[in-house]
Amino acid sequence: IISHIHMNRLVTLAALLCSLPSTDGGKVLVFPVDGSHWVNMRVLTEELHSRGHSITVIKPAQSLYIKEMPHYYQTVTLKAATASDDGFNRFLTTMLQLRLESHTSWRAVLRTGEVILKAMYEWHKIVAETVKEIFEDAKLMQSLQEAKYDVVLTDPCFGGGVLLAHRLGLPLVLNVRWIIPGDGHFAVAPSPLSYVPVAGALLTDKMTFFQRVKNVFIFLMALHHQASLVGPHYTPIVQHYFGPNVDYMELLQASDIWLMRNDFTFEFPRPSMPNIIYIGGFQCKPSKRLSKDLEDFVQSSGEHGVIIMTLGTLVGNLPEDITEGIAAAFAQLPQKVIWRHTGKRPSTLGNNTLLLDWLPQNDLLGHPKTRVFVAHGGTNGVQEAIYHGVPILGLPLMFDQDDNLFRMEAKGVAKVLDLATVNKDSFLEAVKAVLYERSYRENMQMLSRLHRDQPMKPLDRAMFWIEFVMRHKGAAHLRTDSYKMSWIQYHSIDVVAFLLSCFMLMALICFLAVKMLWRKVFGRKKGKTD
Amino acid sequence: IISHIHMNRLVTLAALLCSLPSTDGGKVLVFPVDGSHWVNMRVLTEELHSRGHSITVIKPAQSLYIKEMPHYYQTVTLKAATASDDGFNRFLTTMLQLRLESHTSWRAVLRTGEVILKAMYEWHKIVAETVKEIFEDAKLMQSLQEAKYDVVLTDPCFGGGVLLAHRLGLPLVLNVRWIIPGDGHFAVAPSPLSYVPVAGALLTDKMTFFQRVKNVFIFLMALHHQASLVGPHYTPIVQHYFGPNVDYMELLQASDIWLMRNDFTFEFPRPSMPNIIYIGGFQCKPSKRLSKDLEDFVQSSGEHGVIIMTLGTLVGNLPEDITEGIAAAFAQLPQKVIWRHTGKRPSTLGNNTLLLDWLPQNDLLGHPKTRVFVAHGGTNGVQEAIYHGVPILGLPLMFDQDDNLFRMEAKGVAKVLDLATVNKDSFLEAVKAVLYERSYRENMQMLSRLHRDQPMKPLDRAMFWIEFVMRHKGAAHLRTDSYKMSWIQYHSIDVVAFLLSCFMLMALICFLAVKMLWRKVFGRKKGKTD
Repeated sequence: IISHIHMNRLVTLAALLCSLPSTDGGKVLVFPVDGSHWVNMRVLTEELHSRGHSITVIKPAQSLYIKEMPHYYQTVTLKAATASDDGFNRFLTTMLQLRLESHTSWRAVLRTGEVILKAMYEWHKIVAETVKEIFEDAKLMQSLQEAKYDVVLTDPCFGGGVLLAHRLGLPLVLNVRWIIPGDGHFAVAPSPLSYVPVAGALLTDKMTFFQRVKNVFIFLMALHHQASLVGPHYTPIVQHYFGPNVDYMELLQASDIWLMRNDFTFEFPRPSMPNIIYIGGFQCKPSKRLSKDLEDFVQSSGEHGVIIMTLGTLVGNLPEDITEGIAAAFAQLPQKVIWRHTGKRPSTLGNNTLLLDWLPQNDLLGHPKTRVFVAHGGTNGVQEAIYHGVPILGLPLMFDQDDNLFRMEAKGVAKVLDLATVNKDSFLEAVKAVLYERSYRENMQMLSRLHRDQPMKPLDRAMFWIEFVMRHKGAAHLRTDSYKMSWIQYHSIDVVAFLLSCFMLMALICFLAVKMLWRKVFGRKKGKTD
Repeated sequence: IISHIHMNRLVTLAALLCSLPSTDGGKVLVFPVDGSHWVNMRVLTEELHSRGHSITVIKPAQSLYIKEMPHYYQTVTLKAATASDDGFNRFLTTMLQLRLESHTSWRAVLRTGEVILKAMYEWHKIVAETVKEIFEDAKLMQSLQEAKYDVVLTDPCFGGGVLLAHRLGLPLVLNVRWIIPGDGHFAVAPSPLSYVPVAGALLTDKMTFFQRVKNVFIFLMALHHQASLVGPHYTPIVQHYFGPNVDYMELLQASDIWLMRNDFTFEFPRPSMPNIIYIGGFQCKPSKRLSKDLEDFVQSSGEHGVIIMTLGTLVGNLPEDITEGIAAAFAQLPQKVIWRHTGKRPSTLGNNTLLLDWLPQNDLLGHPKTRVFVAHGGTNGVQEAIYHGVPILGLPLMFDQDDNLFRMEAKGVAKVLDLATVNKDSFLEAVKAVLYERSYRENMQMLSRLHRDQPMKPLDRAMFWIEFVMRHKGAAHLRTDSYKMSWIQYHSIDVVAFLLSCFMLMALICFLAVKMLWRKVFGRKKGKTD
């Protein structure tokens, strides 16, 4: 009805205007989470810089991800290091090993949970130690106080930034998807377990009775994990520096704005709060031209198009039998395949398949000849696939990847394979389904249209609200204080109990009154007849 | 920090771009609520028209408000009339009479509730009859079907538009604040009664135990009223045309977008849903120049400034003793006063007070010399006062005016007087407080800054989402289907009962096992010792 192109142009123009740098810059203190989370945070800091704000990033002594970048942010380098690379690599190897064994058996699920929790325990411990180091470094704290930052921007996957913001008495903006130990929504918005699936439950917003039982069960486990991670690490710090009755979760819940790294093309519809701003896909951007070689290869696919495969950078190589099977499956297809693969060259590789150490993922996903994205299901890749409208064949490895891909499968835009059982035949069958069953592509392109049709680009929205918090020194009018209530008060259990007591008291009085009258009337009669 | 002026300009430019008319117009079927509700709906239809959409308005046979306006919308005129003007005027007189007696006594509260419910019962009956008339007019229904509208826009204060949209199978956008019988949020978003005050309860988001009891109690009464209004009027129609198991509230809850006529400068922070779009203040616009006479009068106030008083158009005149008192109070002030007053000229009127039959409310509120707005607390007036940052002295008359003004009082931007007890002295004291206690003005100007500092103007946001629904034939991805669950399922009561039963069964098995062991061990021993 309405010219879609016209609207897109308007939105782009409006976004362009909004992304003009402000004349007067604010001062932003960034407490990032090291590792892959920095990839997201960097997009926000780069945009803040381009809008004229000065950025200070708190970084550990050694970091592969967070670099000293004097041209666009200053760093406050701590004495402490983050977890060792060796330890992290061992963790990844164990996780992949467990996945290859099976991820569906109870034993594997429990063992995986145990490994993750142990790792989380260590990471939170390191963060807590880092925070203590900062708080006890009088000179550092004084310099942070004197710098008069306007806002703290942090990823609350770990608690460091939340604690520092409160210690400095500064407004707090979260760049968030996960908190201890699940979806950030659960700390701030009502999340009825009857239609809001808990992270990791692999459930949709429409559940059977036993799925709802599973959801409640996993939620209770998550509460237990929360206690076991917050308790030993953050509680001592919070009680020492903020008072004996203060709780870490309260400090988190007092955050001004939650920039949530998803939206409702990704997530199922669920309750929200006025201070939750959805910025899913904020890192997505139009594709650029491919290099000549790559463009020639893509064009050579003709009407069949190309398949892109990458399993991210965390896991280097899959076992040889799996890569041999995948290569053999690819070889049977008329499509061209571009595969990010760093290990041994599979012997079954077809002439149609190009192996690359690194591939320009966004530019390939945005190419009109791209037909299927074979991916591990990391949030960034899934968001980019939605943005460009490319259906997914998922091979989840660990973390939230199962959850992400499950959502895509439920929305009819992805097929998911289990790494423990995948072989040449099942892979070939799955990739053919995503290629040739039209619904995958059609659904994904609809999702893409919905995702792109927003009043404002997600990155501009993120900027608007960070700057809003700077302008107004917080966003108190959007934030409920209901987290200060006890569980019994929040759910009105005391009120229901009171009303029921009143009702029962009234019933009792009525009963006694009737009984008394009965006695007066019939008791007397009885006396007379006796 | 950030140049506020600069940001405002950006927002205005972006909004300007977004408000360019679309090239291809859609077809919008509007089912308005007659009376003052049309004032709001007209703003939306005018803007839709200016963006190139064609508008069809369904109107009753006679209507003072909804006129035939061939230059910008077509009308479908029904045979039935709305409620008679006489009846409505009698209702208003009764309501004012009750208010003048007292609105705080239990008797007055009950009597007022009775009068309102009786009137609501009649109005809903008329709407239900109108809907039946439309549904049974085969020719009309056919022409509505054949017109192939893209969306139905309605105010669900009454159920007509909701029913018609479902009957025509069209996407549905609500322009909503009130539904049967309270705040529209309660039908679509989780609304924990521990911090979400029910309409009419005169409570904030921070309640004591007994305030929470009151809130739950009023909520239960509202549920009862809902049943007594939906039951007799809408249920027979719904069951006849949509099936025996369909419920009116379900049809309402299946709406695509809820354009909510408030925001969080007006409302307390509370849970929301992805398909709730806040458009509070969408009717507000910058003030225009006053006429020469009025501007001269305003300027003559000098440093003291002016007071604006208007109690809306519904109630003509207050009793003479009250107007005499108010006039005498005004006469003692150094300010100039502009008072919309149509009745007998008070004998106590001072030279500083100008009586007008009608006043340009928005232009006066936006004038830099305006100090206080004496108002009845209708939503439009309160929104305009927020927009222009003018503190309020409230004299609530009926409907939601108490609630609106209570919110403003809780936010420290208004003082509220009771019409039953107001006199010269109390009025003078109150108007002086709002004039000279700086917090009223400062708080209201802060609220105004917060209200104006949005990524997009509320009216543009409303347009975006109406057009979004037209482009995508609905907004299913933003709408939860959780309303289809039963109350027991929604609140997971069945799951909790199941888990408790499992737990108790396990406890029982443990107990029996221990008991058996005990007997085996000690029972034998006993036997031996005997």
